Amino acid sequence: MKKEITAEIITIGDELLYGQVIDTNSAFMGQELGNIGIRIKQITSISDDKQAICQALTDAISRADVILITGGLGPTKDDLTKHTLAEYFKTELQLHQPSLDDVEAIFRRYNRPMLEINRQQAFLPASCTPVRNPLGTAPGMLFREQGTIIVSMPGVPFEMKRMMQDTVLPLLEQEFHLPKIIHKVVQTIGIGESFLAEIIADWEDNLPSHLKLAYLPHLAGVRLRLTGRATGSTDALEAEMQQQINQLSQLIAPHIFAHGEVTLEEAIGQLLKARNLTIATAESCTGGLIAHKLTSVPGSSAYFKGSVVAYSNDVKQAQLGVTPETLAQHGAVSEETVKQMAEGVRQLLQTDIGIATSGIAGPDGGTPEKPVGTIWIAYADAHQTIARKISYNKTRLLNIEYTTLQALNLVRQSLPVAVEE
Amino acid sequence: MKKEITAEIITIGDELLYGQVIDTNSAFMGQELGNIGIRIKQITSISDDKQAICQALTDAISRADVILITGGLGPTKDDLTKHTLAEYFKTELQLHQPSLDDVEAIFRRYNRPMLEINRQQAFLPASCTPVRNPLGTAPGMLFREQGTIIVSMPGVPFEMKRMMQDTVLPLLEQEFHLPKIIHKVVQTIGIGESFLAEIIADWEDNLPSHLKLAYLPHLAGVRLRLTGRATGSTDALEAEMQQQINQLSQLIAPHIFAHGEVTLEEAIGQLLKARNLTIATAESCTGGLIAHKLTSVPGSSAYFKGSVVAYSNDVKQAQLGVTPETLAQHGAVSEETVKQMAEGVRQLLQTDIGIATSGIAGPDGGTPEKPVGTIWIAYADAHQTIARKISYNKTRLLNIEYTTLQALNLVRQSLPVAVEE
Repeated sequence: MKKEITAEIITIGDELLYGQVIDTNSAFMGQELGNIGIRIKQITSISDDKQAICQALTDAISRADVILITGGLGPTKDDLTKHTLAEYFKTELQLHQPSLDDVEAIFRRYNRPMLEINRQQAFLPASCTPVRNPLGTAPGMLFREQGTIIVSMPGVPFEMKRMMQDTVLPLLEQEFHLPKIIHKVVQTIGIGESFLAEIIADWEDNLPSHLKLAYLPHLAGVRLRLTGRATGSTDALEAEMQQQINQLSQLIAPHIFAHGEVTLEEAIGQLLKARNLTIATAESCTGGLIAHKLTSVPGSSAYFKGSVVAYSNDVKQAQLGVTPETLAQHGAVSEETVKQMAEGVRQLLQTDIGIATSGIAGPDGGTPEKPVGTIWIAYADAHQTIARKISYNKTRLLNIEYTTLQALNLVRQSLPVAVEE
Repeated sequence: MKKEITAEIITIGDELLYGQVIDTNSAFMGQELGNIGIRIKQITSISDDKQAICQALTDAISRADVILITGGLGPTKDDLTKHTLAEYFKTELQLHQPSLDDVEAIFRRYNRPMLEINRQQAFLPASCTPVRNPLGTAPGMLFREQGTIIVSMPGVPFEMKRMMQDTVLPLLEQEFHLPKIIHKVVQTIGIGESFLAEIIADWEDNLPSHLKLAYLPHLAGVRLRLTGRATGSTDALEAEMQQQINQLSQLIAPHIFAHGEVTLEEAIGQLLKARNLTIATAESCTGGLIAHKLTSVPGSSAYFKGSVVAYSNDVKQAQLGVTPETLAQHGAVSEETVKQMAEGVRQLLQTDIGIATSGIAGPDGGTPEKPVGTIWIAYADAHQTIARKISYNKTRLLNIEYTTLQALNLVRQSLPVAVEE
């Protein structure tokens, strides 16, 4: 059998060692490398220190075929990576004109004056292959040493991600004869890991050994990922996996909001588009997060018209038409209020669907009858208004995020069936 | 001068290498170790593999005084850490009765039947000092080798944190004569790393060697962290650092939104509270994210009344009073529209301050005159309406987040000066 290609990741920066920044870069790189069939042996985080960088590099080169490095490429004094790499690979820095053009272009775009330290960023080790950084002023560098490919990228996540997608991953797939890996993802919401595991236990036990299932739990559900490695043709594997996914999907159909890497808000958007429906939100405790999620999807203006974030009771009354009686009798956190909010925003913004939230996100504001984590959500369309009570009390932010997911899930479950179905 | 105590962290588990779980444990351990004056040299993540564990351990023992290990202590087959450590330190597993009592107590509490694999968890290497795990079934283990202290803990974050606080940190403070570390943070916004570096270059160059400055850039600014180690009394260091911070603050005063670990939305909230002002937002391209940020702060209902997310032009007209003429002449993404939105939401929700955003977040919707990333933000109070144009085009989500930070910063810069100042 073919030799397995292995990789290591080195992240540089004291802020990582002391936990001021959580290292999400290596998680992203690990995912992407895994997706193209490269095995990750180690992730190493070290400080901006010449000796530490050289030692980590030497160790990694002795173990792996690919080494991805992030961090330490900024323009300031504490960024040592570039000079250390030049020294390590015994080469000089020289001006790389295309990189300088990129840097200048960025400063032109934001019409800011370019500083000497930024110009310095376009000087790269002579022996490296520069890796273009379309979103930032620090170019990446690719070196080859003892058959190992070493790529150094900035630590700014969105710059690194773009460079991985544009350059690094395509290059690795071209360079190495990688096994074909197929992932199939089933996205569920509203059911816990152990319940899910119980429902699909028999199916999971009968999976052939070359197919592996991973449970990836998140705030309100579980991402199920089936991974297969093609020994022969990928078509055969693809067909086999699709058949397994179909069986799985039948077992847990009501809990599935999407197949593949789709977010809940994207799935909702697709449903609304397909049914040609518009939506608006009336948010109290979620404070606009549902609107933000919906509008984070490109093209959402096709179905999202707007929202009223009604934090104060005046706004609930004046804008959403919640009656003083309802507020007086039942309070802002109640089935009655949240239903009037959902119906009110639907009327106000003239949409097919209105959703609403009202609850106590905490840490303060709880009472014996309505403790922190008491939350009502509602859905309203032309035919029905549905309310649901949630009891969830972690941190304020988690309560808000959990409520947002539950509200979007309520839309998914309550949408009128489209004519064409 | 006294020898500096150094530590390394080893986290074990494939889910970390492939980014299915983001390693927040090492961030926590790094913070805690840093706070008691231990220098962290390296964080290493490896898979549940005997050889990898032994190699990482040997390397770390050769470099550090303290090694903290998490992961691989679960009851299942793929958890190898305990057996590997027993082998590495040439010792046998033996029953540790107090640990068995703890495990049994936990199963009694949830009245679940205890399985043999759980009983096995109470068998520990004879040469280790067991570390109590009050919240879980996997005890920790402490070993001493060549003057290095090695502690192995479970990977479950809340179990590990409790063991750190109850046992590991007190033990380290007792064992070593540790220096006192002081951190001081200055939060800036609206200025890039390189511009900041240029302004403070002289100040930075003149810092005494026992004070270190770190640049921690984020989307719209930079967190500056000054770290000092007390050789003598902490009062002297505290005073010296405060003086340095005062000098620094004078150099970059207009860019500072807070001292210490405070978010921009928390800082805005404090300003509004101190001035007894209320705020509302009218959001087009930010789609509710400003409202979400403001309401993510506990107690924000004291100053935040609500928002109108006006995604469609109907909503801009009907709710916010943007005139059809303005939309016809200047379009939705214009100084005129965003000013009317800010003034409109202020009127509608009866607040002291209104802020508004309108722009093209992308990826679609751009035109030659108004390309993607063309964004207008506005601030309105009883005395003035201020608009500002932003040109920023990364990804849709980054454009939205960047605009949100700029809008909050516009509030900070435009707020009427409080009477008491």
